[in-house]
Amino acid sequence: MMNPMKVNEDELSLALIEAQYAFKKARGTRNGKSLLILVSGVELAGKGEAVKQLREWMDPRYLRVKADTPHLLNHEQPFWQPYTSSIPREGQIVVLFGNWYSDLLTTAMHINHPFDESTFDGYVQQMQAFEEDLKNNAVDVMKFWFDASWSNLQKRLKHIDLSEKLLHRLHGVDWQKKKQYESVQQLRQRFTQDWIVIDEEDEAVRSRKFAVHILKHLKHDALSWTGNAELWTQSALNEKLTHVEQKTLDHTLYKKRLKKLTKQVAHLLREDQRRIVIMFEGMDAAGKGGAIKRIVKKLDPREYEIHAISAPEEYELRHPYLWRFWTKTNQDKITIFDRSWYGRVLVERVEKLADDIAWQRAYGEINRFEHDLVSDNTVLIKFWLSIDKDEQEKRFKARENTPHKRFKITDEDWRNREKWDDYLQAASDMFANTDTAFAPWHIISTDDKRHARLQVLEAIVQQMKVGYSPS
Amino acid sequence: MMNPMKVNEDELSLALIEAQYAFKKARGTRNGKSLLILVSGVELAGKGEAVKQLREWMDPRYLRVKADTPHLLNHEQPFWQPYTSSIPREGQIVVLFGNWYSDLLTTAMHINHPFDESTFDGYVQQMQAFEEDLKNNAVDVMKFWFDASWSNLQKRLKHIDLSEKLLHRLHGVDWQKKKQYESVQQLRQRFTQDWIVIDEEDEAVRSRKFAVHILKHLKHDALSWTGNAELWTQSALNEKLTHVEQKTLDHTLYKKRLKKLTKQVAHLLREDQRRIVIMFEGMDAAGKGGAIKRIVKKLDPREYEIHAISAPEEYELRHPYLWRFWTKTNQDKITIFDRSWYGRVLVERVEKLADDIAWQRAYGEINRFEHDLVSDNTVLIKFWLSIDKDEQEKRFKARENTPHKRFKITDEDWRNREKWDDYLQAASDMFANTDTAFAPWHIISTDDKRHARLQVLEAIVQQMKVGYSPS
Repeated sequence: MMNPMKVNEDELSLALIEAQYAFKKARGTRNGKSLLILVSGVELAGKGEAVKQLREWMDPRYLRVKADTPHLLNHEQPFWQPYTSSIPREGQIVVLFGNWYSDLLTTAMHINHPFDESTFDGYVQQMQAFEEDLKNNAVDVMKFWFDASWSNLQKRLKHIDLSEKLLHRLHGVDWQKKKQYESVQQLRQRFTQDWIVIDEEDEAVRSRKFAVHILKHLKHDALSWTGNAELWTQSALNEKLTHVEQKTLDHTLYKKRLKKLTKQVAHLLREDQRRIVIMFEGMDAAGKGGAIKRIVKKLDPREYEIHAISAPEEYELRHPYLWRFWTKTNQDKITIFDRSWYGRVLVERVEKLADDIAWQRAYGEINRFEHDLVSDNTVLIKFWLSIDKDEQEKRFKARENTPHKRFKITDEDWRNREKWDDYLQAASDMFANTDTAFAPWHIISTDDKRHARLQVLEAIVQQMKVGYSPS
Repeated sequence: MMNPMKVNEDELSLALIEAQYAFKKARGTRNGKSLLILVSGVELAGKGEAVKQLREWMDPRYLRVKADTPHLLNHEQPFWQPYTSSIPREGQIVVLFGNWYSDLLTTAMHINHPFDESTFDGYVQQMQAFEEDLKNNAVDVMKFWFDASWSNLQKRLKHIDLSEKLLHRLHGVDWQKKKQYESVQQLRQRFTQDWIVIDEEDEAVRSRKFAVHILKHLKHDALSWTGNAELWTQSALNEKLTHVEQKTLDHTLYKKRLKKLTKQVAHLLREDQRRIVIMFEGMDAAGKGGAIKRIVKKLDPREYEIHAISAPEEYELRHPYLWRFWTKTNQDKITIFDRSWYGRVLVERVEKLADDIAWQRAYGEINRFEHDLVSDNTVLIKFWLSIDKDEQEKRFKARENTPHKRFKITDEDWRNREKWDDYLQAASDMFANTDTAFAPWHIISTDDKRHARLQVLEAIVQQMKVGYSPS
């Protein structure tokens, strides 16, 4: 690494701007990435000045800076949820002052019942795993800890004026108390092993070091792809998919049970204190729309939201594939997905829209995403509606002959049908890798539609009642 | 209009679904529109049931329903600000239960010092003007008032159970008090002249009427373009643009005043209780970037946000052109725009990206947008940096020959230069039509860059100090 103090200031600025524009220009290419810079540290250790200096050296219009006040980690939402709108998209660089680590520190310092070590370390592990997932999905993460010794901090505290104090938002930590200072230092040691620590006394040196680290990253690391292949074994075809159950149901009995169950489901969904996410996957014409209609039958339209998921938009493609689901899983009390994030390992795999490494890695990413949701106040209910291949053909033809169903069938449905076996394999691998204790799959045979609808409702009742507390 | 009660239910559902899909399919075409349905009314008058029924008849996945709790109109933000994320984009239909009229009613019923009639009516006028702007920008608005007589309301109140009462969120109005009921009725008469009022006693009739109105709109009105041409007169060329001032400035004096002014500006921006929006337009190479750098010089990077505005993204194009600015003007204390919403009447006009009716109408729309911001707690400071044509050529060439400025110059800049006269005309028309008392333009000659920077800072000081209370 170049010696930060020996670089001429104009040259450094020029190099930073050039690297910034090259980074911006790579947007949309195979090397397109974004960069998230987490900045934390002891008060008055020079974070603000370093970022200010960086913004002067770079083109400030393309270096966003966000500073959230702390969010307490209280299991109301996953730790990454408040930051999803700050995560940069391809070509962008964002500096986050407030970030999940400052939330963790604040929570650890301030709750009445402080975290025990294993809870704290559990969070750190979750955070590091999340960052790894970001990196694998083209969001590079750099972490800087600005540090100051106890005596230096006290010296600096004496010299700041009141208005500056206000700006520094001391976040409830009293930096004049040695015990609190030491607590922060002990806690941060538990997560800063992989951080860049900047602790020079001289402000100019700190700012230069910070800038040179970022320059180096933009010029070198940002150009190489970090994704790792994982060991991959294909699963056997899932029997539930190859041998679809055939059942029939008496009509009067059906009506009666349907009525009772829709009422019960509405009651359970409404009264539960958690957020509820219900998700449907399955072959075309398996009856996703009909099942959803029955779930919401007794709900008020203001109580739920349905998201019909199709191909991502251009701007969504410049984010990690899970991003558009991060932003859709915390807005409503009851959220229903007609297709979902599993598109990554279904259509994107089969149609080769994601390369092998990407979709094989996705199972772990999806499991972590779902675990984070379920750990933090969400019930996740996942359905696969299965259908026999001949039955699908029958329904396709029936749709083409029924006026108010014709809009449901397109050439693409017929094309997807030609890849039936590929989808079966993809679904089997999906179940093998994502049927977890905290977010189990319900595979429902839909050859008899009425039977299927009852089973969906029953599965909801069962999962809502069991409750689940993730380890 | 077809008689709602004579239509067979299946046929109505089929017609609604077909209309809904045709509406969705028109997205991206010249007829592409979105539909915003405002639903308000007396409690228990059937709003919820009607929307629920509509969602059953239509494809519920493409009919979004939003229900916000009321926002008080307290001049903290424009009345439309809380709803910008709910405004549908092309092809979408959204039902808004909570909307700006329910906010107005709630505020009028609940503040300690109730609105006088002219304040109330002033809001109504502002709201109607906003809806007109939406319609002209491809967002159709339908407004439904669900009504019930005093005696019917009391009958219904007796028959609901507790859990329903909870759901109905009575918003602080006590519907069992006749005086309050009558107040609501008197107030709503002041804005519901152009609403569709639904007041039948029978729930089935109400729901059908509601659905048939929407069907009719989707099938007929949604297909016709409602935009009106306004009378348009071209302005004379603005002298400040054709005769750019030539000034020079002593270097020592410049340094001294710059230092003093950057400090003063930082202080004023930071201490003011309002949001501050500073906006730059001007020919290429006029020095927008440099001026911005000086403004933020003494600010902390956490205190402001800079938006560099370029061509809208695909998804932004499916919204009114002002939409992407609605969402960027309320997030930060200090927001700086490098280019802005004036793109509509500058580049979009010159490059024929907006048709004549659209850009000619934009002056009024922009004035209303700016007036709403300024009325509700925002200081808006607008700059045009002007430059002589020969001076621009000199700077372009200098940029091409300076390594750390080369990234600033592209072929497009040279192409824009060829349309110099068109841009001068567009800018002159812009000043003639948008230089308002509440948001005046500052035209700054930049042939001497240092002089220009001082003038920008002085203009900020002057506008911040004057203060302005819109009529």
